[in-house]
Amino acid sequence: MNRPVLEVCLSPALLHLYDTTDKVVVIIDVFRATSTIAAALHNGAKSVIPVASVAECIEIGKAMPNSVTAGERDGKIAAGLEYGNSPSEYPRSFIEGKNLVLTTTNGTRLLHMVQNAAVIVTGAFLNLGAVSEFLIAQNKSVVLGCAAWKDRFNLEDTLFAGAVASLVTDHFDTNCDSVRAACSLYNAVGDRPIIDFLKDSSHYRRLSAYGLQADMEYCATPDLHPVVPILSENELIVHA
Amino acid sequence: MNRPVLEVCLSPALLHLYDTTDKVVVIIDVFRATSTIAAALHNGAKSVIPVASVAECIEIGKAMPNSVTAGERDGKIAAGLEYGNSPSEYPRSFIEGKNLVLTTTNGTRLLHMVQNAAVIVTGAFLNLGAVSEFLIAQNKSVVLGCAAWKDRFNLEDTLFAGAVASLVTDHFDTNCDSVRAACSLYNAVGDRPIIDFLKDSSHYRRLSAYGLQADMEYCATPDLHPVVPILSENELIVHA
Repeated sequence: MNRPVLEVCLSPALLHLYDTTDKVVVIIDVFRATSTIAAALHNGAKSVIPVASVAECIEIGKAMPNSVTAGERDGKIAAGLEYGNSPSEYPRSFIEGKNLVLTTTNGTRLLHMVQNAAVIVTGAFLNLGAVSEFLIAQNKSVVLGCAAWKDRFNLEDTLFAGAVASLVTDHFDTNCDSVRAACSLYNAVGDRPIIDFLKDSSHYRRLSAYGLQADMEYCATPDLHPVVPILSENELIVHA
Repeated sequence: MNRPVLEVCLSPALLHLYDTTDKVVVIIDVFRATSTIAAALHNGAKSVIPVASVAECIEIGKAMPNSVTAGERDGKIAAGLEYGNSPSEYPRSFIEGKNLVLTTTNGTRLLHMVQNAAVIVTGAFLNLGAVSEFLIAQNKSVVLGCAAWKDRFNLEDTLFAGAVASLVTDHFDTNCDSVRAACSLYNAVGDRPIIDFLKDSSHYRRLSAYGLQADMEYCATPDLHPVVPILSENELIVHA
């Protein structure tokens, strides 16, 4: 019996090469959108609404009761929004029961590009195990979609794809070199903490300039927020 | 003093993210265009003319004295052409002094996409050391361009980029995650023959179906044809 197929898409600029019809698509934006989504939902947020622009974020925030607007540009809270992109800003004491309207550049853009998928979920190290188990349970073909950085390949999203691929490999067929490379990358981490491997990456360098080292170390910690954020209409909610 | 910058472009579909102006660009199509180019030129071919279509290949072949037309489609010599894409077809006894008009899909396409480069050369394991030394000597920024497969990331071209990057690293600055991933991939080969690492790749599987295993093993052998094929007008010739 054929098993479902696993593929990795390394950049939104390559997404057109993949047929996502009736597949499970995982949106990956480790630094930091999909990490923050996992944290907020695990800490009791009612929903996360991913939006592309700051203007749209403000508009939806005004219209939606009990909402919080959030998003950064160049490492600072964007003008007109209330909160930033850090998972540490959304403890249960603050976010429980609220709707988080979140604008991020790379992750949101990729999410809106995916067409005809059966299911869209978001993944990050914070919910690595939960997402992997979800993928196995679905028994459908999967595309792991790296949000990258302005279409440029990045190390942290690919590394996470490799972590997922390594965990689910027995349940899928694959003939995708991106899967092989992602697994090889993840294998190279070995016994080190993931963040040590990621310290030599373009995103780590960029965000370090904003003093976000602790944030990134948090984002590189597996399974602190074991939920599966699943897209329902235009909202991400916890998969029951 | 700033050193020149090294970048890796993993697919022609990502080339628009790179500014190749006044840089050295290495076209990489290990299976098998740039391997065959290295072999033919090292064995005394006067030039290799890379062309995009079979029709163009036939036309140039007719107009050019002392020429040989070559190219494959789906693992067979294309209708109307004389020879195939295998480096083994071009021993000195046959190719010396001749012009090889070669049509390949991925490598040629990428080569024609590159704009404003200072220099374009082609690279493959067969001329790994020669190309790496050339890059160091140029003292200019470099983009290693993987031809990929119909824009899909592939393992062998990325692995070669990692081999080059590992050899030249002391002479360049880089903040490119594709370089880091390519180097990690190359590092994962360890003491194994390169072909062993590449046996689990989509291209190896595809070409194996055509019985081309020996060809690929040849292409994965470093430094058998230590020349630097350099683009001059529309021809690749040996860099003196």
